[in-house]
Amino acid sequence: MTIPAPSKLAYVPFVSVDNMMKLVHHIGVEQVLADLARYIQDDFARWELFDKTPRVASHSTEGVIELMPTSDGEVYGFKYVNGHPANMKKGLQTVTAFGLLADVASGYPVMLSEMTILTALRTAATSAMVAKHLAPKGAKTLAMIGNGAQSEFQALAMKTVCGIENLRLYDIDPAATAKCKANLAGSGLNITACPSPEAAIEGAQIITTCTADKQYATILTDNMVGAGVHINAIGGDCPGKTELHRDILLRSDIFVEFPEQTRIEGEIQQLEADYPVTEIWQVINGTAKGRTSDAQITLFDGVGFAIEDFSALRYVHDQLQDGNFYQDLDMVADPDDPRDLFGMLQRAKGGK
Amino acid sequence: MTIPAPSKLAYVPFVSVDNMMKLVHHIGVEQVLADLARYIQDDFARWELFDKTPRVASHSTEGVIELMPTSDGEVYGFKYVNGHPANMKKGLQTVTAFGLLADVASGYPVMLSEMTILTALRTAATSAMVAKHLAPKGAKTLAMIGNGAQSEFQALAMKTVCGIENLRLYDIDPAATAKCKANLAGSGLNITACPSPEAAIEGAQIITTCTADKQYATILTDNMVGAGVHINAIGGDCPGKTELHRDILLRSDIFVEFPEQTRIEGEIQQLEADYPVTEIWQVINGTAKGRTSDAQITLFDGVGFAIEDFSALRYVHDQLQDGNFYQDLDMVADPDDPRDLFGMLQRAKGGK
Repeated sequence: MTIPAPSKLAYVPFVSVDNMMKLVHHIGVEQVLADLARYIQDDFARWELFDKTPRVASHSTEGVIELMPTSDGEVYGFKYVNGHPANMKKGLQTVTAFGLLADVASGYPVMLSEMTILTALRTAATSAMVAKHLAPKGAKTLAMIGNGAQSEFQALAMKTVCGIENLRLYDIDPAATAKCKANLAGSGLNITACPSPEAAIEGAQIITTCTADKQYATILTDNMVGAGVHINAIGGDCPGKTELHRDILLRSDIFVEFPEQTRIEGEIQQLEADYPVTEIWQVINGTAKGRTSDAQITLFDGVGFAIEDFSALRYVHDQLQDGNFYQDLDMVADPDDPRDLFGMLQRAKGGK
Repeated sequence: MTIPAPSKLAYVPFVSVDNMMKLVHHIGVEQVLADLARYIQDDFARWELFDKTPRVASHSTEGVIELMPTSDGEVYGFKYVNGHPANMKKGLQTVTAFGLLADVASGYPVMLSEMTILTALRTAATSAMVAKHLAPKGAKTLAMIGNGAQSEFQALAMKTVCGIENLRLYDIDPAATAKCKANLAGSGLNITACPSPEAAIEGAQIITTCTADKQYATILTDNMVGAGVHINAIGGDCPGKTELHRDILLRSDIFVEFPEQTRIEGEIQQLEADYPVTEIWQVINGTAKGRTSDAQITLFDGVGFAIEDFSALRYVHDQLQDGNFYQDLDMVADPDDPRDLFGMLQRAKGGK
């Protein structure tokens, strides 16, 4: 006697790191970034439909482990993600993640996926989608302060979604800049490694800050930021971690994902709790204004929100229909008679 | 060129449904229940160490999807679980679950496991562990109202942990009772199928209610419950779902897992928000009294708490040391240089 094979319902498609990389290369990384920007924009446009809650965080001295759930009423998604700044020194990723989609009507999981790579892709796609709405028209030059794990994804998304042609890099560690430049060598971007943040932002219409220190830092000071730029600030994303001097915030019009979360985690934790900010989904659906003048400084205080992960998982799930890029996991117990879980267990004994 | 094999850190041990069943039979189901009761008791004894939060629930008209996280400061765990009462009619499980353990210091996952079967085991182990502390001495007879997916696990745990010899069954559906009786035929329990709840509780020192209707029900009325019994009420576990008449609660001394959660989900949602209850962990560590007289009715208003899942995952993880009962999942992206996530993605292209 053998153990009866699990029913189809017992299997959950799993997208491994290996399959995620194959999927991305099958479609092309820039195409994936463009597609993700569209999926995220579509979900931001129907923002009010979603079940929104600040992420559930478990803080420790070393870092944080978070669960980020959301639902549009038909599909439920959540992401597990950690943030451990000291990991890098131990040879580990600062951020690792995986996520799940489930069917709201039955509660059954429908896909499990790695999200370390997918989070990098969706973060970059979100930044670029927001910059498309807020950056000055005809922006061609991007300054990137912080050339770590996020930097290449950010640069390619800004190229594909916003038409960026020139990339100016700065990192406190020149090896990071060299790595970023080498990785993007064949991308068609005109890349300049710069000796200082001041040099990097020269002539840039978009300034991205993505550094990883868990502390109040001042990557940009007020005198460095000229009129008319768009700042894409994504490195300040947890309590006690900011990148911009407060005076820059006061000169900017600030756009955020979910204010309840951003006021805790974003650059605006430096401001009063009722400081006016604009929710980016309202710019997308036309109920709030984005950029209104050439001289205005727009600031996207991006911390990452559950809906972006939902969009990314939804996109990956849509690519699995042909049966490639996943394996089936025997993850859900599915007895023939749903009341007979014990009987299923008992019958499995014969097949040991 | 082939894709470089992921490093050991990239792999997360995964316990499938199939492997969970093999593991349970390898150890023996009663031994697993006894072991789990001990692990749960050990963790309840160090209750104050844990990061406790009510579960994060996403409610829909069909049911609920919940995330239940906790941490003891060294290990983090969470469970995904759904509760969909209408699933059974569609041939699906009312409850499915999976869970994860992670290392607090690095945030890296250390084990992913099915938890549909494991939840049934840990729920039964918790009930029996609590009954060991609260039931009258020498209890030999258990009445079980509700003979669904939980019932056999409950009965075996009460046998193994509390010394129950006689099992009296009642379900509104006689087929459920027949299934439960047949499944437990070789267990050594003396089993009686009863035609009514009143008949089932005759002579029983422990009464377990585990029905699945999502509504205010009255499985037991006040006149049915005599002095000195222990009631193990586990079916009332979400807002709007209770099993006992309020008058029974008023005659009982009530013991709960985590009051903040039980007041929302348990039988005591029928009582005032400050109605006195005892936290069961305090009985276990000796700081509160359990049963104090033979005539007392003790009531465990069990709703299931994250620490029980943590204990169960911890137990399963401890069984994996010899390399059996799991498969490795390529779930965590782990580039050689942690800042070079993009480079890892790019190098994978050659191996397509």
